[in-house]
Amino acid sequence: MSNFHNTPASARVKRLDAIRAILTAHNISALIIPSSDPHLSEYLPEYWQGMSWVSGFTGSAGTLVITLDNAGLWTDSRYWVQATLQLDGTSINLHKITKDTPSYARFLADTLPQGASVAIDGAVLSLSEHKNLSATFDPKNITLITDLDILGEVWQERPNLPISPIYPHQREFTDLTTLDKLTNIRHAMTRSGADYHFISSLDDIAYITNLRGGDVDYNPVFLSHLLISHQHATLFVDETKLTADAHLVLHEAGITICPYDKMGEALGKLAGTLLIDPAKITIGTLSCLSQQATLLSATNPSTTLKAIKTPKEIKHIKSAMRQDGVALCNFFAWLEKRLTNGEALSELDIDDMLIQTRSRQPHYVSPSFATIAGMGANGAIVHYRATDEHFSYLDGDGLLLIDSGGQYQNGTTDITRMVGIGDITDAQKQDITYVLKAHIALARAHFPAGISAPLLDVLARNQLWQQGLDYGHSTGHGIGYFLNVHEGPQSISYHAPATTERTMRVGMITSNEPGLYRENQWGIRLENLMLCVPAGRSEFGEFLKFETLTLCPFDTRLILPHLLSPTEKDWLNAYHQHVYDELINELSDDAKAWLNARTQAI
Amino acid sequence: MSNFHNTPASARVKRLDAIRAILTAHNISALIIPSSDPHLSEYLPEYWQGMSWVSGFTGSAGTLVITLDNAGLWTDSRYWVQATLQLDGTSINLHKITKDTPSYARFLADTLPQGASVAIDGAVLSLSEHKNLSATFDPKNITLITDLDILGEVWQERPNLPISPIYPHQREFTDLTTLDKLTNIRHAMTRSGADYHFISSLDDIAYITNLRGGDVDYNPVFLSHLLISHQHATLFVDETKLTADAHLVLHEAGITICPYDKMGEALGKLAGTLLIDPAKITIGTLSCLSQQATLLSATNPSTTLKAIKTPKEIKHIKSAMRQDGVALCNFFAWLEKRLTNGEALSELDIDDMLIQTRSRQPHYVSPSFATIAGMGANGAIVHYRATDEHFSYLDGDGLLLIDSGGQYQNGTTDITRMVGIGDITDAQKQDITYVLKAHIALARAHFPAGISAPLLDVLARNQLWQQGLDYGHSTGHGIGYFLNVHEGPQSISYHAPATTERTMRVGMITSNEPGLYRENQWGIRLENLMLCVPAGRSEFGEFLKFETLTLCPFDTRLILPHLLSPTEKDWLNAYHQHVYDELINELSDDAKAWLNARTQAI
Repeated sequence: MSNFHNTPASARVKRLDAIRAILTAHNISALIIPSSDPHLSEYLPEYWQGMSWVSGFTGSAGTLVITLDNAGLWTDSRYWVQATLQLDGTSINLHKITKDTPSYARFLADTLPQGASVAIDGAVLSLSEHKNLSATFDPKNITLITDLDILGEVWQERPNLPISPIYPHQREFTDLTTLDKLTNIRHAMTRSGADYHFISSLDDIAYITNLRGGDVDYNPVFLSHLLISHQHATLFVDETKLTADAHLVLHEAGITICPYDKMGEALGKLAGTLLIDPAKITIGTLSCLSQQATLLSATNPSTTLKAIKTPKEIKHIKSAMRQDGVALCNFFAWLEKRLTNGEALSELDIDDMLIQTRSRQPHYVSPSFATIAGMGANGAIVHYRATDEHFSYLDGDGLLLIDSGGQYQNGTTDITRMVGIGDITDAQKQDITYVLKAHIALARAHFPAGISAPLLDVLARNQLWQQGLDYGHSTGHGIGYFLNVHEGPQSISYHAPATTERTMRVGMITSNEPGLYRENQWGIRLENLMLCVPAGRSEFGEFLKFETLTLCPFDTRLILPHLLSPTEKDWLNAYHQHVYDELINELSDDAKAWLNARTQAI
Repeated sequence: MSNFHNTPASARVKRLDAIRAILTAHNISALIIPSSDPHLSEYLPEYWQGMSWVSGFTGSAGTLVITLDNAGLWTDSRYWVQATLQLDGTSINLHKITKDTPSYARFLADTLPQGASVAIDGAVLSLSEHKNLSATFDPKNITLITDLDILGEVWQERPNLPISPIYPHQREFTDLTTLDKLTNIRHAMTRSGADYHFISSLDDIAYITNLRGGDVDYNPVFLSHLLISHQHATLFVDETKLTADAHLVLHEAGITICPYDKMGEALGKLAGTLLIDPAKITIGTLSCLSQQATLLSATNPSTTLKAIKTPKEIKHIKSAMRQDGVALCNFFAWLEKRLTNGEALSELDIDDMLIQTRSRQPHYVSPSFATIAGMGANGAIVHYRATDEHFSYLDGDGLLLIDSGGQYQNGTTDITRMVGIGDITDAQKQDITYVLKAHIALARAHFPAGISAPLLDVLARNQLWQQGLDYGHSTGHGIGYFLNVHEGPQSISYHAPATTERTMRVGMITSNEPGLYRENQWGIRLENLMLCVPAGRSEFGEFLKFETLTLCPFDTRLILPHLLSPTEKDWLNAYHQHVYDELINELSDDAKAWLNARTQAI
């Protein structure tokens, strides 16, 4: 992470003042700086970390709003503690996003005068969010100005665009060729009557091209746009980043290369029907579009195609799960030994050791996200990240939450486990057991083919609701194949509309991660990845179920077995037996002993 | 039921021909006759049973489509057996509605030529359905003609409008006065900025006015429209039907009376903002509207107000449940005795005896719907109704499904129980047990306040899905207070969008009726009514749960206890103890003995 995040608060106050001077000059009442880029990515290159550069807040989701006499940062509960610390001394107010508090758009509509002007950089504003903003602002006659780059005017030492090399996903781990994938996309274009399809979302482009890069942390993607017609395809990218092998892959698929910043020119020349995903394209990009083009809005076909893993991909992913399982057994055996020896360890050591042990596995590339190792109350901060300035030691009594994952050429992993440090109370064990019950309920679920993924959420939560417990995040997200750790279209979250697009399909891989967070006390999350598989056909239709892919025991010393039903115990014992069978022959003696002890039936 | 339903098929073919002659004269390609009336009611006065008059099909849901060379009836799985019988000899094809078959609108769009004209009587077509039809027809340039009453031209002996008396809901059983309710509606109008509110839905009008009628079967409503402004209110109704007491109630609330057919004139004079519910108003009605009026579309405020029963109403409903429970104990004791004595009984006797025993209870008015008593394979026909022509005897071995309910001045009831006739197989018991597990899962559920009712559906279904089982109807519907047995806005059906409008709220009463239907074998449904009540507040928010209101045992001889978990057994035993405690002192000796035997703990 660049050092601009460590700027003193006084310097950040000056940045606010500089922005206000420009607002005044343009007669604009407010500037909105979202955490976003022209590709609407989760992780941003530093070039687009303007929200963070102005405010100092480094969370992955937040919106900064600057008016002439006020500034506020809107972020959700995962980041409230972190934001409070990082905004200190900046005069920026923290606005906690809850279902009962006004959104930043509502806040502006309520506080600005009729007819005011509000700026937001169209280059990083999605079409769908633009629609939401307009719906809130129009009744107050507030004008949205999207063609000014105010941040660019004040940000003198703005970082450069990233230049990491772009390389092919190893051929042995891919199934479909780039041309196969283009053909599938073109079939989808024909079905919807599109002449062209334009894609800005980086994981869609990496999936289609079979190329990978390193332009942002954790997600192996590269900055680019992709324009596909029935005869041609053009990748807008910094050509100097392409390796010779990457050139070859593009050449074989008939994809032409064009400079990254020439995308607008190409859009300006299109005549015909253009398929775009309004949630994954910015209005800045679309503003380049020719008048001859007609828009057709739908989910990018590649979003669904890449979510459904092929049998060959699944075979590779299962190997990656075994590699990750071996790394985790080594890690936990190491951790337990150190703790038993009374060595002083901190949350930072967890991160170091996980990366070390994973990197010894074949085909390892990088972590798939920033390790969350939260001791005690830190575990209750959902997206906690220990830093050199703020971290805890693993001492005293308490629960340690470890959420981590790896990018391998043959798969992306994501797992959360709980570790007991010292004495664990029955109240803590009870909480863990209820979260485990929620996890098992979803892992065991059978459901009719065609059901929308959000509807499955209640099956997990019900186990907690019965006890008056709940958690604020979603229960499951899709995961890429050596790609983003978070991907759609499926989402096991009842807050997401249960649309057809979110249908749970055979071949999808989704996390199962119920949790429980007691502020200032402890946090719990238990996470495996699951593959959607057929469960048979009856006179009542076709049914689906999940196969758990992640291979790592849950610590049975942390649960209250009497709270589990016989069915739940059976599931847990069968899972542990499976983990044992899959991993035992791959392990060193220390790790073997650990796995043997940790997979005993209860 | 009028005898026009028994017309021979040949007469119905002549009616089709007469309609086709008119279509030809008008150069129209097709006529759509929905099962609908100007109030969009579930049960129709005979005057609007044109679909049935032409086709002979008497199911409560179906759409008849007549083209120049073809005729088809679209209906859902509840009515396929019945429709097959009733359409025999008419040349009308049965189109089974499934998620994989084209809707009647799709069918017409696909088969008619570009630019064709299709007629449907706007007087019975809802605004929302009109929107759906237009969306399907517009791309084919098909014109929808809504201002012709073609049915009226061919239907010579069309029945008259009903003339049942309109009387006040007994004052001792109402809580809010008519004026209180008008005031609540006017508050809602103010909140949404409406000058006027127009209502065609009969249960909404009965709720607001505290009046009841008998214009259709089972639902104690009366034909009318209601126009409310902030100062005035007008009821459009046949004044001769109003009792003196009804006149008084309207007078006290300041409601003016106007003839039923003058509604259009009044709408033609409105200037201002008019609140209407697009799902509950026809385009025929709206076509009368003045150009000076601006429409504001939202759910009728009374729909939500009447769904949330007041504490006083709940007290009365609990009395009605006791009355109904006493009637049911008498009925089941009687039935078991007759069956043990080997008396010849038929499905029709069940209906007779249920009405007889309910009518002995205080405040009884009528059945709340047509009793479903289905022996063996008849039980698998979801909306089965035994008739003098088609019914089964209760002999041999098999399951008898009984779904029935009563209208009392102090509440509306709806209950389904299973009866074993002769020997019941383990396969049947297993099915019943899984349906019971689904019922118990929903009955025991706790859930966060604010959750939309459709999301709760999977809690019940999950129990069946795990076994590859499922059912085609919704799990729960709202129920009125001495009003319609089916009412919204809540619906426990995952097919319904989980909107805010469908939020499950404290005071709502909803059925809990999972089922299982094995075609040509047996059908199972277990139904109680449940009240939504608070379940306490924790650091994780406010939680709600259900209190079961229906008082009648489930026959434990029909279940396999080893399939129930301890928690499920506890629920069942506690429920039976509660039923025993509530009813035992109200019963005759025969019924006492029966209840005692049927509520023993398992």
